[in-house]
Amino acid sequence: MFSDIRPAPKIDRDEYKEAERELRWQLLQAQFALQDRGRALLLVVSGIEGAGKGSVVQRLSEWLDPRGIRANTYWLPSDEEESRPHFWRFWRRLPPRGEIAVFLGSWYSGVLRDSIELPGGDGLQSAAERINFFEDMLSADGAFVVKLWLHLDKGDQRKQLEERAGKQQNPRVTDRPYEIHGHYDQHVAVADKLLDATSTDCSPWHIIDAKRRRHRELEAGRILLTAMQEELGNSARRPTAVPFTPATATTRLDELDLALSLDRSDYKKELKSLQSRLQDLAWQAYREGRSVVAVFEGWDAAGKGSAIRRVTGAIDPRLYHLVRIGAPTDEEHAHHYLWRFWRQIERDGRGTLFDRSWYGRVLVERVEGYATDAEWQ
Amino acid sequence: MFSDIRPAPKIDRDEYKEAERELRWQLLQAQFALQDRGRALLLVVSGIEGAGKGSVVQRLSEWLDPRGIRANTYWLPSDEEESRPHFWRFWRRLPPRGEIAVFLGSWYSGVLRDSIELPGGDGLQSAAERINFFEDMLSADGAFVVKLWLHLDKGDQRKQLEERAGKQQNPRVTDRPYEIHGHYDQHVAVADKLLDATSTDCSPWHIIDAKRRRHRELEAGRILLTAMQEELGNSARRPTAVPFTPATATTRLDELDLALSLDRSDYKKELKSLQSRLQDLAWQAYREGRSVVAVFEGWDAAGKGSAIRRVTGAIDPRLYHLVRIGAPTDEEHAHHYLWRFWRQIERDGRGTLFDRSWYGRVLVERVEGYATDAEWQ
Repeated sequence: MFSDIRPAPKIDRDEYKEAERELRWQLLQAQFALQDRGRALLLVVSGIEGAGKGSVVQRLSEWLDPRGIRANTYWLPSDEEESRPHFWRFWRRLPPRGEIAVFLGSWYSGVLRDSIELPGGDGLQSAAERINFFEDMLSADGAFVVKLWLHLDKGDQRKQLEERAGKQQNPRVTDRPYEIHGHYDQHVAVADKLLDATSTDCSPWHIIDAKRRRHRELEAGRILLTAMQEELGNSARRPTAVPFTPATATTRLDELDLALSLDRSDYKKELKSLQSRLQDLAWQAYREGRSVVAVFEGWDAAGKGSAIRRVTGAIDPRLYHLVRIGAPTDEEHAHHYLWRFWRQIERDGRGTLFDRSWYGRVLVERVEGYATDAEWQ
Repeated sequence: MFSDIRPAPKIDRDEYKEAERELRWQLLQAQFALQDRGRALLLVVSGIEGAGKGSVVQRLSEWLDPRGIRANTYWLPSDEEESRPHFWRFWRRLPPRGEIAVFLGSWYSGVLRDSIELPGGDGLQSAAERINFFEDMLSADGAFVVKLWLHLDKGDQRKQLEERAGKQQNPRVTDRPYEIHGHYDQHVAVADKLLDATSTDCSPWHIIDAKRRRHRELEAGRILLTAMQEELGNSARRPTAVPFTPATATTRLDELDLALSLDRSDYKKELKSLQSRLQDLAWQAYREGRSVVAVFEGWDAAGKGSAIRRVTGAIDPRLYHLVRIGAPTDEEHAHHYLWRFWRQIERDGRGTLFDRSWYGRVLVERVEGYATDAEWQ
């Protein structure tokens, strides 16, 4: 992907000023229009170390209304983030509808780092598939993802890093220019593959020659603007739903034998032994740092509540968290519909029990009118 | 406080069963009534190690509707918790109105631990004052705090710990019974002082002899029930507001000289130098792990927005987070009114800028009718 990169032209001060004025005005217009339509925008800013990702984002935040944009930085994961599934740290910072989230360091950074450290594995391909799935899900829900890669060739990188090393600024870059520079070829080779595998129709990568400050800022602004305007033009577009095939004669539920029963004394004995085993297993899971997510669904009055009570009654309350899912709060409504489940996931070693869950989108919301046909399909 | 503790009577199996049935029924009634009235309940369960805090909470969760109660455990702080102000970890888990939060390990645990390790300091007294202030704030906002201390004398503690050490359970207790036991006298002396200093009219401590399982469970249930019923009886009660004294002739705002001005070229020069200094200082604060919380308030059209833009324009977007405060979401509305500010506080080394803030309660919500007179006062 990096072979056909457009070289950065020189832009003089006045030219820049003029272009900036026009661009800023249009960006603001587009931002407000997206706000009105309730579209969420995820802007991924990635690239070679030393290419000026931070300064580009700083300029974009200046051009846009800073109240509708938030920069998220992912350096080392905190221990809370590390003790949850990989994507949790991104889900918890997804922008609500109408807002822009910038990701400096994103779901790409970890994959790049891992692939550089362990080259030749097939991890890259499966990671790319998971990423594409994640971005597709977001797009299907009314968000859209814009991805920028700021590129430098080997010589330019060395120049940038050395130049910055003198200045009192970002300590992450300036402390180790030569160390970073040493990995250039590996880094670019892996990035090339990853970008290729994740440049999809709905969220392609945009590559910018980051050698010259004015050029890279204007380019970034223009790409963002074009993407926003296209999205506004398409805003009638709904996700193409997979056609729903109604169930044929028998379903899984039909196979259930509803005549089974257990006499009271057997029940009591078995319950006691199972509960005591559950109690021990819960502590064992805690010691080993394993997590459980359990989902309870069922007809009303089928005894879901008391089944949950039998389980929670057995487990030390310090080791689980019961989440009751009702109608979404307005904050939850402003996010992707899976956000409210992701944000409840407990840390390593603890259980999360869901009393109703993400299946509700199809089971309940569909019937009660919380979700449109296109949404639940 | 521990001298006048009532010794635990023996309760036989049948007696317990009967008392439990009655108690459970009443607890459920009270829980639903509190739910209807939108009261939040904070139940602090503290006590001597080995006194069975976990098992008491397990029983209470079984008696109550588990969907309206959540147990919060505070063992070692996570790094996210450690890098924020001390009370943040409690604020982020405050129950929404109508729900019960159990705190196993709470704002008391850290104070106890510190005072045992550093006896004789005056830390205990000032910590107690901060705690009282925190609990008063919660009470004034429609929540109430019930505090249980499970007590054991020295001999009983040794017995309990040794007995449990054999069983495969809570690894935190069973791995080190003798070590814990060694600190008994110190622990009790400090706890006695702390409980005394924090047993206030609005949230007194209840001390339970925890020697016998059945007694301690029924006692805990009864104390909780009585507190809930009292709260329901008092629910008309509003916080006694500090009388509001209208401003006299001159206010701070009157002292402001609104005629000051700066010519354009001076402005530009000074702005540039201040912004570049701000940029450097922000990175320095990041390196040193210092946090800033900045609040912007002002009349509409006074230029608040552009003042904020001048500041954010100077700081690397990775280092701050701008929070715009509008009308509270329904989730925020269901919590103490300060919860929505606390949950936004950034980690060490980053800045949090508030565009409007907690002053809004008095400035805006009062005028626009979001807060009642009693609330804003």
